[in-house]
Amino acid sequence: MNAWYAAAYDVELRRELLPRTICGKKLVLYRRADDAIVALEDACWHRLLPLSKGRLEGDNLVCGYHGLVFNPEGRCVGMPSQETINPSACVRRYPVVERHRFAWVWMGDPALADPATIPDMHWNHDPAWAGDGRLIQVKCDYRLVLDNLMDLTHEAFVHASSIGNRAVAEAPFEVTHNDQFVTVTRWMRDIEPPPFWAKQLGKPGNVDRWQIIRFEGPCTITIDVGVAPTGTGAPEGDRSQGVNGFVLNTITPETDKTCHYFWAFCRNYKLGEQKLTAELRDGVTRIFGEDEVILEAQQQAIDDHPERAFYNLNIDAGAMWSRRLIDRMIRAEQASAPSPIRQAAE
Amino acid sequence: MNAWYAAAYDVELRRELLPRTICGKKLVLYRRADDAIVALEDACWHRLLPLSKGRLEGDNLVCGYHGLVFNPEGRCVGMPSQETINPSACVRRYPVVERHRFAWVWMGDPALADPATIPDMHWNHDPAWAGDGRLIQVKCDYRLVLDNLMDLTHEAFVHASSIGNRAVAEAPFEVTHNDQFVTVTRWMRDIEPPPFWAKQLGKPGNVDRWQIIRFEGPCTITIDVGVAPTGTGAPEGDRSQGVNGFVLNTITPETDKTCHYFWAFCRNYKLGEQKLTAELRDGVTRIFGEDEVILEAQQQAIDDHPERAFYNLNIDAGAMWSRRLIDRMIRAEQASAPSPIRQAAE
Amino acid sequence: MNAWYAAAYDVELRRELLPRTICGKKLVLYRRADDAIVALEDACWHRLLPLSKGRLEGDNLVCGYHGLVFNPEGRCVGMPSQETINPSACVRRYPVVERHRFAWVWMGDPALADPATIPDMHWNHDPAWAGDGRLIQVKCDYRLVLDNLMDLTHEAFVHASSIGNRAVAEAPFEVTHNDQFVTVTRWMRDIEPPPFWAKQLGKPGNVDRWQIIRFEGPCTITIDVGVAPTGTGAPEGDRSQGVNGFVLNTITPETDKTCHYFWAFCRNYKLGEQKLTAELRDGVTRIFGEDEVILEAQQQAIDDHPERAFYNLNIDAGAMWSRRLIDRMIRAEQASAPSPIRQAAE
Repeated sequence: MNAWYAAAYDVELRRELLPRTICGKKLVLYRRADDAIVALEDACWHRLLPLSKGRLEGDNLVCGYHGLVFNPEGRCVGMPSQETINPSACVRRYPVVERHRFAWVWMGDPALADPATIPDMHWNHDPAWAGDGRLIQVKCDYRLVLDNLMDLTHEAFVHASSIGNRAVAEAPFEVTHNDQFVTVTRWMRDIEPPPFWAKQLGKPGNVDRWQIIRFEGPCTITIDVGVAPTGTGAPEGDRSQGVNGFVLNTITPETDKTCHYFWAFCRNYKLGEQKLTAELRDGVTRIFGEDEVILEAQQQAIDDHPERAFYNLNIDAGAMWSRRLIDRMIRAEQASAPSPIRQAAE
Repeated sequence: MNAWYAAAYDVELRRELLPRTICGKKLVLYRRADDAIVALEDACWHRLLPLSKGRLEGDNLVCGYHGLVFNPEGRCVGMPSQETINPSACVRRYPVVERHRFAWVWMGDPALADPATIPDMHWNHDPAWAGDGRLIQVKCDYRLVLDNLMDLTHEAFVHASSIGNRAVAEAPFEVTHNDQFVTVTRWMRDIEPPPFWAKQLGKPGNVDRWQIIRFEGPCTITIDVGVAPTGTGAPEGDRSQGVNGFVLNTITPETDKTCHYFWAFCRNYKLGEQKLTAELRDGVTRIFGEDEVILEAQQQAIDDHPERAFYNLNIDAGAMWSRRLIDRMIRAEQASAPSPIRQAAE
Repeated sequence: MNAWYAAAYDVELRRELLPRTICGKKLVLYRRADDAIVALEDACWHRLLPLSKGRLEGDNLVCGYHGLVFNPEGRCVGMPSQETINPSACVRRYPVVERHRFAWVWMGDPALADPATIPDMHWNHDPAWAGDGRLIQVKCDYRLVLDNLMDLTHEAFVHASSIGNRAVAEAPFEVTHNDQFVTVTRWMRDIEPPPFWAKQLGKPGNVDRWQIIRFEGPCTITIDVGVAPTGTGAPEGDRSQGVNGFVLNTITPETDKTCHYFWAFCRNYKLGEQKLTAELRDGVTRIFGEDEVILEAQQQAIDDHPERAFYNLNIDAGAMWSRRLIDRMIRAEQASAPSPIRQAAE
């Protein structure tokens, strides 16, 4: 719980009430007149009606049942038919920061909320990069999405018609890890580019292709991907003849078995082509749709076989270290104050 | 359980089998050839098939699976392929009385069923009053509907476009209670009438408006409502220049989290205008549809926050006393014979 | 579990992956290039994804997530990005035999799987008989279907417009049983034939009608049915002037509350008339559709009344002995090795 979770894409937040469930807690989000984002508990102090069923009155929120008024701090400042307001009348306020085009909420102890620990997804608003993304609601444990992203071998089987080919499944890879990150690096040298990358590069011939996956706990993965013509020095550090993208992913648990999967694809070429941005966003949407089918079937299979454990192959090293890092974070948090929700998610 | 519950509107009952769940029990209702209403347990003694899947044969009910025949007393009077009928072969019969346009069933000990204790809703068939009503199935604990009706402050927020205005939320009110009734009286003097009442009155100028809510346990609420031109003496007892309506409500638990909400709106003016009767019925249907959305969202919120209790404001005094009266009825009943269903509903 | 269960009709199985749940276990079925049927556990050893979401590669099955390859024995013979295959990597293989137009799987200990114990449904492929059938998915405990078939009295009430008439409910019957079979024999002599049989016979006048129901544990029922003109000696053994059909039924538990109901209707007359075969199949489909409504309502009623037991009438003797035979089989199996699934089904 003591972590920042992406709660919404920036464009989702307006002068309207947006209900959203994060880590099993119901929140209502909206923008104040000065554009700042507010995140409150989505249940009226009085009779529990979701505040998101009410309406904004200036920067305050008015409950849709009996008209109790709450300010952006969550404090009740108006009650029907009575002058004195119960001093205990308030709803929980969550710390929230807008950064890298996401609204990040802190679900744990507010005293520990340090914006410096928000994951680095700067490509999503850096003028040297162009791109866009989406939110997908996936009916699975968020860690299944992490497993999926930490091992891209599955591209060869799930995405055979677009980005996958046997080279991904056959190329060797290297895993490193420390207290904060797990990194999986895979170089596929001198290969025929898959259809997607051939089109992006726009040059004939074989390529060197890279996938550098970086996990940052509890739920963010950035993937540095690209191709360059073989022989132009990309593996040695000169990517100038190639094309480079970053797949940004942050997956927020909604419940134990559903999650909000926020992603973006940013590129460092043809920055001004709006059409390409839209094409890429729609293309990645299609590819991730293929994953969604697999992930939801896998969650169903886990529910159907509660007695079965996962086996690990060599390819699962990245996912395995990521899960260990998550487990370590949970244990560290429980050592100070046990969180029943997070234990349930385990 | 030892109470009369409305099971159906009179027009719902014909020479056909109507299945209905009351307080968690499945019943089948129908009219005999002499128009009397029969209420039996809706599960065949033999193999549990709902008897409502069968058919009427005269005044008897024939099971749709193996053809067992039950008379209106619930006794089996015919079995396939055998002459001797097991003397234990019967289904439970419930006492039922048709009154005030409703079929009232007694769910508890038949020996205690006294028709004199049926709630007074005489306006619904009194020639001095005209009106009609409907049955709404609401997915919430019936007590949430009672809470809603015992405090009409919510009209200002939920029904702002029809009957609600700030005056309702601002006017003082008075609550009285005894062993049988809880009464909430609110007079709004010299106010601008809301659109609905301005139209009913058909006279210009400010009005005195009244709402006199009377709860009768376990689940009936009649609301005496109306307006009269200010200065014509309504608060002092002379309503002759005004218009008067009675909103009749009786809410029957179906399960712990669903209920049958029967209502009617009766008026003492323009008695012969059928069109007005239909307009009022449809108008109230729309208004109660606004409540339905709120009530189901509230039930969902209660399920989502099992650890949370309700806080009471001043406006909740009527609802609070009504719930206490219900609790007292339940305790009195449990003192004689514990009823597991009712306890579950608690 | 130590029994053969029909898993699929022969025509359902092709060079494609068919997922099917049998006795609570998820299986994937397909045909090899040589037409032999394969039945494997439908969950990848690695990450549990249903193998039925993958694809065939020759006679092997390739997982749709990470490309693990399994042979028809269930052994993993290929893993992505690694040469060495974990020797424990395999999924369970179920013995399967194709006979009488069904694929029969053995759900228990493979060492005990003896094809000689597959129930006799030879009419379904015997050239002296013509017919066809279907699979119906019914949302009820498979034993409710058995109850239904072991007592055809219900024809008079459920199928009054086709095969049923009062004669069925009124005729006496005889029940015999031994360690393997329960047989219910009912002769209706000198009766007016119901519409269905009048049409099949194509001769005027009264008939002798027979229904000889034979249960074979745990879940197969064959019904020898037919009519012959009264006086031509059918009850004494000469059916030559009549028409004869066999209703073949085998009901495979899917879960505790759903089942796969495989049936066929075979006749010994007008063998070459394809149109009649189709007409009969569609007619029986309609009749069984009437049963399906009743059976699912009955299952619902059982769930709604967990405290209620079934009462037995004289007509239930066949069903009662069948259930006793099933219980005896379960006890015998549990005596050697307890099966938690089967116990849950009890």
